[in-house]
Amino acid sequence: MRDALQVQLTDLTDRLAVMAHDVAQAMRDATTACLEGRVRLAERVISGDAAIDARRDEIEEQAVTILALQQPVATDLRRALAVIHVADDIERMGDLARHVAKAVRRRHPASPVPGEVHPLLERMADTAITMALKASEVLRTGNVLLAAELDGDDDEMDHLHREVFAVLMDQSWPHEVTAAVDLTLLARFYERYADHAVAVAKRTIYAVVGGGPDPLPI
Amino acid sequence: MRDALQVQLTDLTDRLAVMAHDVAQAMRDATTACLEGRVRLAERVISGDAAIDARRDEIEEQAVTILALQQPVATDLRRALAVIHVADDIERMGDLARHVAKAVRRRHPASPVPGEVHPLLERMADTAITMALKASEVLRTGNVLLAAELDGDDDEMDHLHREVFAVLMDQSWPHEVTAAVDLTLLARFYERYADHAVAVAKRTIYAVVGGGPDPLPI
Repeated sequence: MRDALQVQLTDLTDRLAVMAHDVAQAMRDATTACLEGRVRLAERVISGDAAIDARRDEIEEQAVTILALQQPVATDLRRALAVIHVADDIERMGDLARHVAKAVRRRHPASPVPGEVHPLLERMADTAITMALKASEVLRTGNVLLAAELDGDDDEMDHLHREVFAVLMDQSWPHEVTAAVDLTLLARFYERYADHAVAVAKRTIYAVVGGGPDPLPI
Repeated sequence: MRDALQVQLTDLTDRLAVMAHDVAQAMRDATTACLEGRVRLAERVISGDAAIDARRDEIEEQAVTILALQQPVATDLRRALAVIHVADDIERMGDLARHVAKAVRRRHPASPVPGEVHPLLERMADTAITMALKASEVLRTGNVLLAAELDGDDDEMDHLHREVFAVLMDQSWPHEVTAAVDLTLLARFYERYADHAVAVAKRTIYAVVGGGPDPLPI
C-alpha cells in the first residue's frame, strides 16, 4: 500500500517534470515568434495552452484522489500537496508564455519589440527557459543544489528586468508609447515566469525535506 | 469529531474572509496613496504586507494539520484544500496592493499617474475593491449568487483595462514614457487582483457544492 503510494506520487512528480519541460518549450516558441515575427508559431503557443491547463486539472484531480483514498501522512501528505501547488505554478507559466505569444499576434505584422531591445529580451527569455528546465530537473531528481541555483538565476532575472526599465526610462527612447507598453508587459511576463519556476523548485524540495514554510536558503 | 472538524473549517474560512477584507483595505489605501500622492500611506501598505503573508502561512499550516490529523474526505477534504488555495490567492492580492504602493513610493513626490487618468484608475480600483469585498462575503456566507456576480465585475474590469490601453495607445499621449510604463503596470495589478478575487469565490463555492474543476457558470 505504502509502496503503491510512493509509485503514484513519483509518477505525478514525473508528469509535472514533463509539464515544466513543455512550458519551457512554450516560452521558447513564444520568444522565437516575438523576435522573428512568426505569427503562426505564436498561434500554436496560444492554442497549445489549453492542453497544459487540462494536464494541470488531471494531475490535481489525481493528487486529490490520493488524499481522499489513501489519506497519506507526513512526507507523503506534503508531497501530494506539493503536487497540487506545483501544478498550479507550472500552469501559470504556460499562461505567461501564452501572454507573450498574444503580444506577438496583437502587433503582427509589426514586432512588439524594437530591434535594439532584442538582445536584452533574448537574455530574459534564456534565463526564464533555463529556470524552467532546472525546475523540471528538480522535480525529476529532487536535486537540492540545483534548486538552490534558481535563486541566483532569479537575481539575474531581476537585474535584467531593471535593465529593461532603464532602457524605457532613458529620455532618448525613440519609439512609440505602444512599444513601451508592450516591452513593459513582456518583461513582466518573463519575470513572473521566473518567480513561478523558483516556487516550483522550493515546493518540490520542501515536500521532500520538510521544515518550516520557507526552510531553504533558496 | 466530525462536528469539531466543521467548526475548525468554518473558523479557517472566516479568517480567510477577514483576510480578504484586509487586502481590500490594503488596495484602497494603496490607491488613495497613488491618487493623493500620500507616500506615508504607501509605506504603511508596503510594510503591512508581511502580516498578510504570515496569516497565509498560519492558515495553510492549520489546514495541513487538519488533513494530517483528521483525514477528512468528500466535502471536508475539498473545503480544507480550498482553504489552502484561497489563502494563496488572497496573499497574492496583498502583494498586488503592495506593488501599487511601491509604484507610489518610486515616483514620489511626483504621482505615477497623470491627473486626467485618475478617474479611470479610480474606477479600476473601485471595481477591484468591490470584488475583494464580495469574495470576502462569499467566504463568510457561501452565497452562490454573489459569487456569480464576480464574473460580471470581472468583465467590467477587463473593459476598464482595455480603456487604459486605448488611452495609452492614443497618438496624442502627452506624457513621458515613464508615466506610460507606470500606468501599464498599475492597470495590470488591478486586473490581476480582480482575477484572484474571482478565483477565491469560485474555489469557495466549488468546495461547498462540488462538481468538476470548473463547475459553475461564474
